[in-house]
Amino acid sequence: MNQYNILLDPARMPDAWYNINPDMPVPMAPPLHPATLQPVGPEDLAPIFPMPLIEQEVSMQQYVSIPGEVMDAYRLYRPTPLRRALRFEKALGTPAKIYYKNESVSPSGSHKLNTAVAQAYFNKVSGINGLTTETGAGQWGTALSIACSMFNMSCDVYMVKVSFDQKPYRRSIMQTYGANVFASPTDRTDFGRRYRAEFPDTSGSLGIAITEAVEAAVTSGGALRYSLGSVLNHVLMHQTIIGQEAKLQLESIGEYPDMVIGCCGGGSNYAGTAWPFAHDKIKQGKNIDLIAVEPTACPTLTKGIYAYDFGDTGEMTPLLLQYTLGHKFVPPPLHSGGLRYHGVAAQVAHLTKLGVMRAVAYQQNTCFDAGVLFARCECILPAPESSHAIRAVMDEALKCKETGEAKTILFNLSGHGHFDMSAYEAYFSKKLEDYELDEEAIRKAEADIPKVPIPQ
Amino acid sequence: MNQYNILLDPARMPDAWYNINPDMPVPMAPPLHPATLQPVGPEDLAPIFPMPLIEQEVSMQQYVSIPGEVMDAYRLYRPTPLRRALRFEKALGTPAKIYYKNESVSPSGSHKLNTAVAQAYFNKVSGINGLTTETGAGQWGTALSIACSMFNMSCDVYMVKVSFDQKPYRRSIMQTYGANVFASPTDRTDFGRRYRAEFPDTSGSLGIAITEAVEAAVTSGGALRYSLGSVLNHVLMHQTIIGQEAKLQLESIGEYPDMVIGCCGGGSNYAGTAWPFAHDKIKQGKNIDLIAVEPTACPTLTKGIYAYDFGDTGEMTPLLLQYTLGHKFVPPPLHSGGLRYHGVAAQVAHLTKLGVMRAVAYQQNTCFDAGVLFARCECILPAPESSHAIRAVMDEALKCKETGEAKTILFNLSGHGHFDMSAYEAYFSKKLEDYELDEEAIRKAEADIPKVPIPQ
Repeated sequence: MNQYNILLDPARMPDAWYNINPDMPVPMAPPLHPATLQPVGPEDLAPIFPMPLIEQEVSMQQYVSIPGEVMDAYRLYRPTPLRRALRFEKALGTPAKIYYKNESVSPSGSHKLNTAVAQAYFNKVSGINGLTTETGAGQWGTALSIACSMFNMSCDVYMVKVSFDQKPYRRSIMQTYGANVFASPTDRTDFGRRYRAEFPDTSGSLGIAITEAVEAAVTSGGALRYSLGSVLNHVLMHQTIIGQEAKLQLESIGEYPDMVIGCCGGGSNYAGTAWPFAHDKIKQGKNIDLIAVEPTACPTLTKGIYAYDFGDTGEMTPLLLQYTLGHKFVPPPLHSGGLRYHGVAAQVAHLTKLGVMRAVAYQQNTCFDAGVLFARCECILPAPESSHAIRAVMDEALKCKETGEAKTILFNLSGHGHFDMSAYEAYFSKKLEDYELDEEAIRKAEADIPKVPIPQ
Repeated sequence: MNQYNILLDPARMPDAWYNINPDMPVPMAPPLHPATLQPVGPEDLAPIFPMPLIEQEVSMQQYVSIPGEVMDAYRLYRPTPLRRALRFEKALGTPAKIYYKNESVSPSGSHKLNTAVAQAYFNKVSGINGLTTETGAGQWGTALSIACSMFNMSCDVYMVKVSFDQKPYRRSIMQTYGANVFASPTDRTDFGRRYRAEFPDTSGSLGIAITEAVEAAVTSGGALRYSLGSVLNHVLMHQTIIGQEAKLQLESIGEYPDMVIGCCGGGSNYAGTAWPFAHDKIKQGKNIDLIAVEPTACPTLTKGIYAYDFGDTGEMTPLLLQYTLGHKFVPPPLHSGGLRYHGVAAQVAHLTKLGVMRAVAYQQNTCFDAGVLFARCECILPAPESSHAIRAVMDEALKCKETGEAKTILFNLSGHGHFDMSAYEAYFSKKLEDYELDEEAIRKAEADIPKVPIPQ
């Protein structure tokens, strides 16, 4: 049996998503309507999402079957390989066994396509022919562009201005798949125009871009819906194909992880990898360390406030109970665009609060150190986001070197860095700044967060 | 059995390369020493290549075993998937069945890594710790950078100036893997300095870059050797892992191709895919159409002259019997850098001359048309080189639509276009020029080619 290139027979690819909500040790607090502070109902969300996705968002069914059309799309690139990072282990001199799920082989270059095709499909069968969305690093926008192209839908992408400027080729690839791409804040929405008037030098943020994309959908007279690339329950659920495949692949070589590690912005690649193992921890008492890795520049889980807050800057979304740096927080322009989000998925926040998982934060330069070492060992050039996971893996593997423990570590290589070469250039020329959130920023965040009581 | 995502069990990955030389219907003419016009011997090549590769170059052994260290490197990304292009077929409305080998999943982004790791390995075990090479589009330079990084060797890449300028991120990725990258012609070699003095505005060419890289190796006092990414027998042989895997994958679903199609610059991805099937055509009389696709801007096989010519502009290589546009030919700056070569592999020339295979040529805009359609159907963004193959596949599939024949077409998707977004931008903004070689250029080529008799 080959122990370092573990492919899964396509016939064994899981045909259902894993929904962690029914397995939560304590039920999650519901999203609230900002005006009434009452739990939002399906009708509140209908102008934004199609009904099948709203149903998934609140579903208490443990497994949700994947439609044939989505399975067909998955088969274009799934099952993805699970690899053992033997050369990386050797370079570190660690007794740990490091396995990584390689989501970079997806045609969009990251895990994001797993939910993009699902969301496009459920919109299409609900009679919707166009989607709006935001993108940070561009991984999500690329994925949704591809998915819309597959289902013959229009795709309007509001791209965070700093990424739009840093990554012109990300814009081009989305256009190649037929999408319309705008630098956010734009002058296409009320909120965008108002924000630009107030902050003409803004570099944008995911929170701002989300507001614009939601506004564009709800003011489209029903023609368009909005699609979110992370954070929501149904998005995280679509990503569980990653962890489920990884579990089968590890099982096929008689392995089970001691740790599962993923980078965490909104939380979808992390949760998609970790939740099938969180299931085992919660339901079967498995001893497994689940670690989310975030940047010190946007340390939502490690320094954020546990509170009800908006998902967007313009206060258009429901209030979600989460860790947050405040919905008006604009993170510094670090090169991991996908990790520049003020909040985090409610599921991730909930399980962090309950101690089922934990989070660590790193400076970006130290993540590039790890990413370059990984590239030179394993050949794959990681996205800066994924390098955060690699940095944490490296540190855990080095701890094993000290203790002599041969732990089994699984991490998700969420995407490749082919569109992040400007970040690598900045790193090599020592122009990459490290950022650390100071106490004043936290106090400012606290002031911006609405005062809503947390249910006990 | 899944019919459109055909994975090969890693345990069944071929462990030998297929060498077509012993199976040639007529033996090939030998390479000649330019001074003596006598066949070159191993000692002539020793300053350039290590002995194991020289032995492979002239080997008459049908299968050459792949060393364990190279197999280990292959296992980082091989076996690559074989996919049925169902959505592309549907878009064309063709009864043809289109399968493609997806070499774009290699960490270097193309098939080039298959020979890069083999060449780095055989140099390393011969005591060489550094390689020089040229690169056009950057696919080859990236692959050799990765391979050298894996075997802890230095890597000096002479990159054709037009590509160096068009593709700054290709340069960065090579540097990330630790390579030194120079815009060719450089002032680091005698030939480069002389060429720049004569043609200060040159955009460079593969022929010039090869001369520089060879000169750098032979003047290194034995420290460095040179590595070529295509053209030579041993390079084409290393690529036969592609066609061998594809044959096993097709066999597993009861298929055998009526046509095998690949783009052709030097000829390595084409030959690597086609030769295992050329074997069946030559030895078993299989009726199979083998088609190489080249650009009209550099139509070596379709308009070139069958003659002994140099492999490089500076006349440092042996004379090879091939189709050539003259070794001083500088192709127009089309965006398929990997197809900008004045000559072609002697094996490809020989089998074209014998009628075992054939060639077609296309304008680049029509190839981008096909590549964009393919991307929107199959999600993968093809390299402009690979889009030449896709164009030919599309036309053959459309012929099937007319005749109603359900032919089985296999082609090689040699690489992705993630570092070619400037070309896509030019295409979408209608700034991409088409080029057609005129009669005057052919006459000029004829004048440049040395007058050496061809053995009958």
